Amino acid sequence: MPDPVTGWAEWFAGERAARETAGLQRTLRPRAADEDVVDLAGNDYLGLGGCPRARRAAADAALAWGAGAGASRLVTGTTTLHAELERELAAFTGQEAALVFSTGYQANLAAVSALLDKHSLVVSDAHVHASLIDAARLSRAAIEVVPHNDVDAVRAALATAGGRRAMVLTESIFSVLGDAAPLAELAGVCAAHGALLLVDEAHGLGVAGTGGRGLVHARGLAGHPQVIMTATLSKSLGAMGGAVLGSAALVDHLVNRARPFIFDTGLAPPPAAGALAALRLLRARPELPSGVHRRGAELAARLGVPPSAGAVLSVPMPAPLAALDAQAKALADGVRVGCFRPPSVPDGVSRLRITTRAGIEESRWSHAVDVLAHVVEEHRR
Amino acid sequence: MPDPVTGWAEWFAGERAARETAGLQRTLRPRAADEDVVDLAGNDYLGLGGCPRARRAAADAALAWGAGAGASRLVTGTTTLHAELERELAAFTGQEAALVFSTGYQANLAAVSALLDKHSLVVSDAHVHASLIDAARLSRAAIEVVPHNDVDAVRAALATAGGRRAMVLTESIFSVLGDAAPLAELAGVCAAHGALLLVDEAHGLGVAGTGGRGLVHARGLAGHPQVIMTATLSKSLGAMGGAVLGSAALVDHLVNRARPFIFDTGLAPPPAAGALAALRLLRARPELPSGVHRRGAELAARLGVPPSAGAVLSVPMPAPLAALDAQAKALADGVRVGCFRPPSVPDGVSRLRITTRAGIEESRWSHAVDVLAHVVEEHRR
Repeated sequence: MPDPVTGWAEWFAGERAARETAGLQRTLRPRAADEDVVDLAGNDYLGLGGCPRARRAAADAALAWGAGAGASRLVTGTTTLHAELERELAAFTGQEAALVFSTGYQANLAAVSALLDKHSLVVSDAHVHASLIDAARLSRAAIEVVPHNDVDAVRAALATAGGRRAMVLTESIFSVLGDAAPLAELAGVCAAHGALLLVDEAHGLGVAGTGGRGLVHARGLAGHPQVIMTATLSKSLGAMGGAVLGSAALVDHLVNRARPFIFDTGLAPPPAAGALAALRLLRARPELPSGVHRRGAELAARLGVPPSAGAVLSVPMPAPLAALDAQAKALADGVRVGCFRPPSVPDGVSRLRITTRAGIEESRWSHAVDVLAHVVEEHRR
Repeated sequence: MPDPVTGWAEWFAGERAARETAGLQRTLRPRAADEDVVDLAGNDYLGLGGCPRARRAAADAALAWGAGAGASRLVTGTTTLHAELERELAAFTGQEAALVFSTGYQANLAAVSALLDKHSLVVSDAHVHASLIDAARLSRAAIEVVPHNDVDAVRAALATAGGRRAMVLTESIFSVLGDAAPLAELAGVCAAHGALLLVDEAHGLGVAGTGGRGLVHARGLAGHPQVIMTATLSKSLGAMGGAVLGSAALVDHLVNRARPFIFDTGLAPPPAAGALAALRLLRARPELPSGVHRRGAELAARLGVPPSAGAVLSVPMPAPLAALDAQAKALADGVRVGCFRPPSVPDGVSRLRITTRAGIEESRWSHAVDVLAHVVEEHRR
């Protein structure tokens, strides 16, 4: 740790130099609205956020309501649009109630920190998203991290809970490896121990289950009194925001106790309207998610990696700089993909991050598959 | 603490019953787009978010970019719109660089948690916003809470820092009491101790300083190597989102290390465009903030309370239910105001929360002042 008196500028410079040496320096690259690339980096898996109807709905909301919600949801930041979105999200996923947040990050912070305190226990899968790790820290609960998808380890950890309120944190489909959690088993263990199971469906909603209703619904756990679902409106629904779904009593509790809800401005009407339009399109076209899975299987086979349960395909790379190099080569051929590099990977392995997108036309998709197969092959030699 | 085996439903019911007894139960009341009330509860102080030009800019962005940014800012979520907004925010406030977040809450979480760790020290004013309190917790630094606006206490706390990285947390204009922080003195103490001073300008930007450039700028602290400014785009700029402003090295560090930035979807283009349009309008009309102060002084005099340094006027009420009653009576007469009730008040005193809004026409404003004077007078008798 640097001596603070030598100055923060030096500290920043030292931190940056260390990142550069490790191949981990990141910079922002602004994109234009009309770029001609096949975008397999963004999370609008189904093409709903970018479709004309969602754009029009967001634009109409901007004209009707303004650019922002105006205040906290508890003051004037709840519009009839928010209420409608919450009603339809809950109905679609088979839940009693939903509460919309400004981001999925805030939804996770809220769900954990408003239900637990320093006398509680969090049992967290080793691969959960940063927002859930931060949520657990914020709650001040004791945190037990268990090996990935290890139901026995969860059971053993819960057995130590004693009289404490306890919550198990998992994702339905994990963001980096793209594998699914054993939700039914986890819910059974939680029920046996009086614990809550929080399932982050960021990568499940719109992709997994019948018509994209998510994995909680597919496993028959929607409405289960000890299962809480969180979701994001920024991936398959192509907008912005997050949600917590569960019982009406849960939502009432969050409205009253969740600091990331109470002390935050409500989600802006344009993305709320965009998410609602996307949800209605998804409901009307239950076959959409299958396009993601078909393409994902095809791409995984071509790249020689296991298929993903969701829309994000991970391709391990030998080093962070190799991942950047492969990404740059793909972009030079008109295909944008993402990278996973530390600290965004649970196991330290850098990867290409490729989102399978159902909304892209067939010829462009085929071109992208060819480009990626070539780039990945090069890095294997 | 309840026995978890007796069930979460009972726990929720017990928590709610306790809130109801204390007069602290909150419910969401969705508002329609065309309500005919004078809104002195929302935070669009200058009327910029709701003005035709900001609405149009947000709508155009929805049509051009879609309802969402598509991914994390580090993947494809940085558009030329974000870059433009960051450039103009920094120029307006006299800072070298700015970084835009999805909410002001996330901006505060990021600024604190990416610069400190468990070996660090946070010195926090007793009245700072919930997002800064949560940010300090998230950082895992040792936390020293000092009395409100007490520079000597800050100096004494920093003297105990030893070799630790240290940060002082304050707001330029405090959200509940509406008073200003002694920024020049605090910056001097921080400089002497090698500590950073984080100033949340949520209620200062657009309201304080020349042309609404904020109190950091007004005190000559913009560009100070140890002063970090955070802001929200959802109050005077009437949109959604937050920002951290300071040196380019600070922004580079946050881009690389701030989890609430890296692991969050970028701010949606419509509110980003709305904030940018509002900022440009503010720049073109530097006299706008004076309207807030003139009306604020008038209203404070009529209600017999001290004026606010910002746009939020607090009127103490004898009890939480009295605040609700006064709020309901004002609404019945066509004037919407907010309430501060625990846990949203640093001293436990419930208050009416009235935002002074420059964008409302004179006759409606006069009516609102009369209604509020009457309602407040009733509760004093």
